[in-house]
Amino acid sequence: MAAFPLPPGSTLGVLGGGQLGRMLALAAARLGFDVAVLERDADSPAGRVAAHTIVGPYDDPKALEALAAVASVVTYEFENVPAKSVLTLQALGVEAAPGPEALSVAQDRVAEKQFLNATGAPTVAFASADSADEAMSQAAAMGAPLLIKTRRDGYDGKGQRWIEHAADAAAAFEALGGVPVILEAQANFVRELSIIAARGRDGATAIYPLSENHHEGGILRRTLAPAEVSTRTAEEAERIAVRVLEGLNYVGVIGIELFELKDGRLLVNEIAPRVHNTGHWTQDGCEVDQFEQHVRAVAGWPLGPTAPHARVEMLNLLGDEANQWAKLAHEPETRLHLYGKREAKPGRKMGHVNKVHPL
Amino acid sequence: MAAFPLPPGSTLGVLGGGQLGRMLALAAARLGFDVAVLERDADSPAGRVAAHTIVGPYDDPKALEALAAVASVVTYEFENVPAKSVLTLQALGVEAAPGPEALSVAQDRVAEKQFLNATGAPTVAFASADSADEAMSQAAAMGAPLLIKTRRDGYDGKGQRWIEHAADAAAAFEALGGVPVILEAQANFVRELSIIAARGRDGATAIYPLSENHHEGGILRRTLAPAEVSTRTAEEAERIAVRVLEGLNYVGVIGIELFELKDGRLLVNEIAPRVHNTGHWTQDGCEVDQFEQHVRAVAGWPLGPTAPHARVEMLNLLGDEANQWAKLAHEPETRLHLYGKREAKPGRKMGHVNKVHPL
Repeated sequence: MAAFPLPPGSTLGVLGGGQLGRMLALAAARLGFDVAVLERDADSPAGRVAAHTIVGPYDDPKALEALAAVASVVTYEFENVPAKSVLTLQALGVEAAPGPEALSVAQDRVAEKQFLNATGAPTVAFASADSADEAMSQAAAMGAPLLIKTRRDGYDGKGQRWIEHAADAAAAFEALGGVPVILEAQANFVRELSIIAARGRDGATAIYPLSENHHEGGILRRTLAPAEVSTRTAEEAERIAVRVLEGLNYVGVIGIELFELKDGRLLVNEIAPRVHNTGHWTQDGCEVDQFEQHVRAVAGWPLGPTAPHARVEMLNLLGDEANQWAKLAHEPETRLHLYGKREAKPGRKMGHVNKVHPL
Repeated sequence: MAAFPLPPGSTLGVLGGGQLGRMLALAAARLGFDVAVLERDADSPAGRVAAHTIVGPYDDPKALEALAAVASVVTYEFENVPAKSVLTLQALGVEAAPGPEALSVAQDRVAEKQFLNATGAPTVAFASADSADEAMSQAAAMGAPLLIKTRRDGYDGKGQRWIEHAADAAAAFEALGGVPVILEAQANFVRELSIIAARGRDGATAIYPLSENHHEGGILRRTLAPAEVSTRTAEEAERIAVRVLEGLNYVGVIGIELFELKDGRLLVNEIAPRVHNTGHWTQDGCEVDQFEQHVRAVAGWPLGPTAPHARVEMLNLLGDEANQWAKLAHEPETRLHLYGKREAKPGRKMGHVNKVHPL
């Protein structure tokens, strides 16, 4: 096992070669670390800025062995890392952060909500169903409208259906593939907020100000940060963040999506045990951004400051929107972040901009 | 020849794999570019964050050919690029920026001062000498004390001698290797300042605020920025920067070292046609730092803003000083930048910190 804090010159392993891996790799390099990316694609956004790329699926024992041979610690850019991969790495003497508890909670929407409620973080009412019959009876008990989601996988609005009538639950269950689902009551929220928080190996926490998020078709379009919220809301969000981090014995950065209700109460929508799209504003709004913060936490370094020095509007560039780079490059307040993806498929996250304004 | 502005996804070639190449590569990646580094050492600070490393000396035709095969435009992290390499690249259809004029001026201290004076940028009095006899007669004419430097090469205080008596000129000439030299009158300066400036392919210029610099043994230790200067001094420095940039038909970022005299006048000490150690403060003091600015200029993008949002004290970490990383990581105002160099030789630039304070 590596000794912490990890000295510069050590290698940080990253599972996943997408934009989050790329921005983690850039942050790690600034602190003097080397990065090894494990990724199926030999030519990935993260791999192109990393010292090493190991090509393979995330659960390939040979690939994990090659990663363990160079990396002192391993982290990931997505939550659906196979639990077995983490155990394999641990058996090879390499610690993975965030740890297996965080992954298992984040990979199962029912376990996630159970954990959240147990830790004192409120959520919408929910129920699980493993069959169409069970979905029908749970829907009847809860009452529509309801959101039905697969318990596992799914992102950016994929793997979920709204039903307006409890009687539609069986059809929705089948349409989602007949796999175990979660039924969620509708949250009558007025705003979607999120909070990006970090916990170090020493148990210290660092919490960024809340951001206000706008989704379209299940995909994040726009983040405004710091969000204008009451002190009470800010304190409640921080309280939730600390409970989640401590409850998971967490190491690294986490993204916690929140619903703000009319009466000011907050419900947790979901948690993402990784750097998060709604935290991209920190790159141009804070001295230490979420990527460096995650590297610091995972490497056992002390956490950095989270105070904002600017007000930021973050806009995702989806698909062809990234073709506007030349226009965007002319705007003095606009900082461009492009991911080096070769193909601009519709809806694909190709980059983002941070529009920076004085606080 | 590439069409400008260069679209993201294009490859930027960098001659040199040290820390400046590394920080250029990180900035280029943020804008969606790939980077190809040409460097003798297969395991270099810049190569470890670049998509491609081409291993070879900077004047190796085969290596330059390999670079030209992937890169749309080439730039460099140091001024002593062989002129022939730039011509070779041009013959292969790849533009190099900054161009050959800037390189030839910056590579010869006599040509540099002649250019500066001709463009209206004052320097100390100087003379050239190609022999010990000539050095003696020039020194007698100018009067001691005098600084004698080799016309070419030399950095961080290497390749130079002070003489207190004109009669010592012949011995100094021989001690410097018997190569052509420049004799420089002493500048009775009160402060060393520098200005980091950029010029785009469209001729637009962008100028950062002045910084105040402190050297020890010829090596930069400390930069304070923005420097506290009078409006007159700031305007004079900007006027010099614009004349230098335009006089060289320059594309990219340039570092201009200045002496501030008692009466407030500025003399140009030297120019460095590249990103510059005294501009590292911009990484944490400005929205667009000198590295992104250089990439923007070289890629034909519009230049970015140069206004500071913080006051920064930059300290170089030389040799063993980089071992203080764990202590420095605890300071909330301190941003660490480490270069990934394997060996901490005495005096070697291993990293720097930017201590960030409100403006």
